[in-house]
Amino acid sequence: MSTGIKDRAAVVGIGQTAFARALGESETELAVEAALVALDDAGIEPAEVDGLASFTVESTTEVELARNLGLGDVTFFSQVGYGGGGACATVAHLAMAVATGRCRVGLGWRSRKRGSGGRPWARAGLGEQPGADATPRTDDWYRPWGLLRPVDQVAMLARRYMHEHGVTREHLANVAITLRAHACRNPAALMGHRPLDRDEYMAARWISEPLCLFDNCLESDGALAVVVVPAERAPDCRQRPVYVHAAAQGFAPQQQAMVDYHRADPLAGAATACARALWREADVAPDDVAVAQLYDAFSPSVLFALEAYGFCGRGEGGEFTDDGGIEWPAGRLPVNTSGGSLSEAYVHGYNLVLEGVRQLRGTSTCQVEGADTCLVTSGESVPTSAVVLRR
Amino acid sequence: MSTGIKDRAAVVGIGQTAFARALGESETELAVEAALVALDDAGIEPAEVDGLASFTVESTTEVELARNLGLGDVTFFSQVGYGGGGACATVAHLAMAVATGRCRVGLGWRSRKRGSGGRPWARAGLGEQPGADATPRTDDWYRPWGLLRPVDQVAMLARRYMHEHGVTREHLANVAITLRAHACRNPAALMGHRPLDRDEYMAARWISEPLCLFDNCLESDGALAVVVVPAERAPDCRQRPVYVHAAAQGFAPQQQAMVDYHRADPLAGAATACARALWREADVAPDDVAVAQLYDAFSPSVLFALEAYGFCGRGEGGEFTDDGGIEWPAGRLPVNTSGGSLSEAYVHGYNLVLEGVRQLRGTSTCQVEGADTCLVTSGESVPTSAVVLRR
Repeated sequence: MSTGIKDRAAVVGIGQTAFARALGESETELAVEAALVALDDAGIEPAEVDGLASFTVESTTEVELARNLGLGDVTFFSQVGYGGGGACATVAHLAMAVATGRCRVGLGWRSRKRGSGGRPWARAGLGEQPGADATPRTDDWYRPWGLLRPVDQVAMLARRYMHEHGVTREHLANVAITLRAHACRNPAALMGHRPLDRDEYMAARWISEPLCLFDNCLESDGALAVVVVPAERAPDCRQRPVYVHAAAQGFAPQQQAMVDYHRADPLAGAATACARALWREADVAPDDVAVAQLYDAFSPSVLFALEAYGFCGRGEGGEFTDDGGIEWPAGRLPVNTSGGSLSEAYVHGYNLVLEGVRQLRGTSTCQVEGADTCLVTSGESVPTSAVVLRR
Repeated sequence: MSTGIKDRAAVVGIGQTAFARALGESETELAVEAALVALDDAGIEPAEVDGLASFTVESTTEVELARNLGLGDVTFFSQVGYGGGGACATVAHLAMAVATGRCRVGLGWRSRKRGSGGRPWARAGLGEQPGADATPRTDDWYRPWGLLRPVDQVAMLARRYMHEHGVTREHLANVAITLRAHACRNPAALMGHRPLDRDEYMAARWISEPLCLFDNCLESDGALAVVVVPAERAPDCRQRPVYVHAAAQGFAPQQQAMVDYHRADPLAGAATACARALWREADVAPDDVAVAQLYDAFSPSVLFALEAYGFCGRGEGGEFTDDGGIEWPAGRLPVNTSGGSLSEAYVHGYNLVLEGVRQLRGTSTCQVEGADTCLVTSGESVPTSAVVLRR
């Protein structure tokens, strides 16, 4: 019979490199550094790692990482597509793999140099990238209209959302300013030295209207890693275990990646499908969540996630952020307590996973007192994933 | 506690398109066609599919396939790297996913037009493809010496293997000729109309010495798909269920992809690591295997697999093929009963999975009477995977 994975795996190690606009090490070197920090945090030797999960967009292959870390036999490996949708999925895959004996110690990671490296869309012309066999690509339908960068695509969705639900730039500013305030308490955050106020937000230049500079994530160099083991081993590790209570991936019927702004309810896409699967598995509900790390490559993404994961009704995400709703320490749901992608670092949302773990260990720089349940979500405009972490 | 996946999932549907040197449909169209055939074979509606697994080298994305098939919420998706190493891993991932309730109906697939499309190495110059961040790539160590195509890389390994173990071209010919004979009974096989004899084999041109034309797989267009469900649902499907008795992925310490010919024992790599994990899980042993589908992008790969998976000792793979050892119907282990990659079609070994299922259904064109256990393996020169299928 089918057995779930509820509470059957735990995150017992986390590690990260410095975050910066430009780091000297290669992506492989950064991946190795983050992995070694995470393994040391767990008190587990590299040679014990036998499961690996990462992103299809990750440049360091499994064999490169394994050779550089000195791993033994590796008996599980998987990759997840769609960039920012994948962070929680790597944890989900490793939880499933350790729960079913595919491996005993799983390592998930993301290493990225987009601060100093190129932008994926830098050479994106109009129709220059046909499919391998010249099949028309979905891109062919929107690239000729200038929707080349992720921000252009999310701006379309944000514009419709703001129009239909009365959400305003004040709400987006709530997100950007709150996350910057959280970052200012986090020594690891790239923008930790630079507070942001409403005047500066409102005066910022457009990147793709209605999204201004501060609605966009940072472009960062850095790497992060997590170590996942079966629940029964977790108490023997160095740190307080953080259990993967529930985990889900999801995308919806007629899903598009990044350009999913045509459907009747444009927010009834990937995140909504993922949320259905997640809460179906979980013993807890949104009301039980003490703190959340919500994917925030762009500020409206936080509003979309608040709605998709059931913290408020459709169209109420903006209002939820009023009166300090997502602020630490007093908001009804403190969100992105490390500063997130907007103000800590943009590493495809992997930093959100680590901050979720810190909250349940009690070691966040914006620690929510007594937090015992944390939701972490990945990018909502693409096939996505989410985890509920518990003490 | 960790629960395995032993016999907890079943392959209940298989589907494939025609195989040809050149098909008119796109890779996406072929993928859809194969998926629909597989779902019809199982008697399951497309809207029920909620898990997807494929290769990182697959050009049709999950969302493209889902939209074209009309899927509902998809709640599990994974990709596996390393091309030919991945076919069995897609089955392994889906088996794990349905066994843990990540999804209820899993679809694995591979669609490929390499017969009519380009070769991945066609534009492979010397050092033209640095890593995304200019990290030196492993390729930089062998490309300058002309090891550009997979066949060049496998030829290195084959040469050392033949030198060290006294394996000869006669043994490679045994593989090529046997598989061609199997293909000649299979109406779907690309080379089914064209028997091969020893004289023709020995007179064939080198592709990369010591590998001649007939030691190389075909270059084909075609697509295949499998449907995987939890074991408890399998008896309600249209066809006799084929259970995923054991499944494993694997690569070894200091693994290299494709260029793993330096280690002390050059065959103690990915397949050996995978075999360790596979037989650890299985209730059966090599002696119990009635028929095997062994990855055969190149003829020596079959010998490597015979050794790695324990059908004979190290260096005895050649000898195992003497006296009709791998021939249907009388060999001690009939191998690649559809003709395999050498003579049915090359689709990254996905056809081996389908032929494994047919053997246990009793519907192969080289049916092994009473076969109740079949080993299927994926590419052994890269991180790999394998499954033991049972009735």
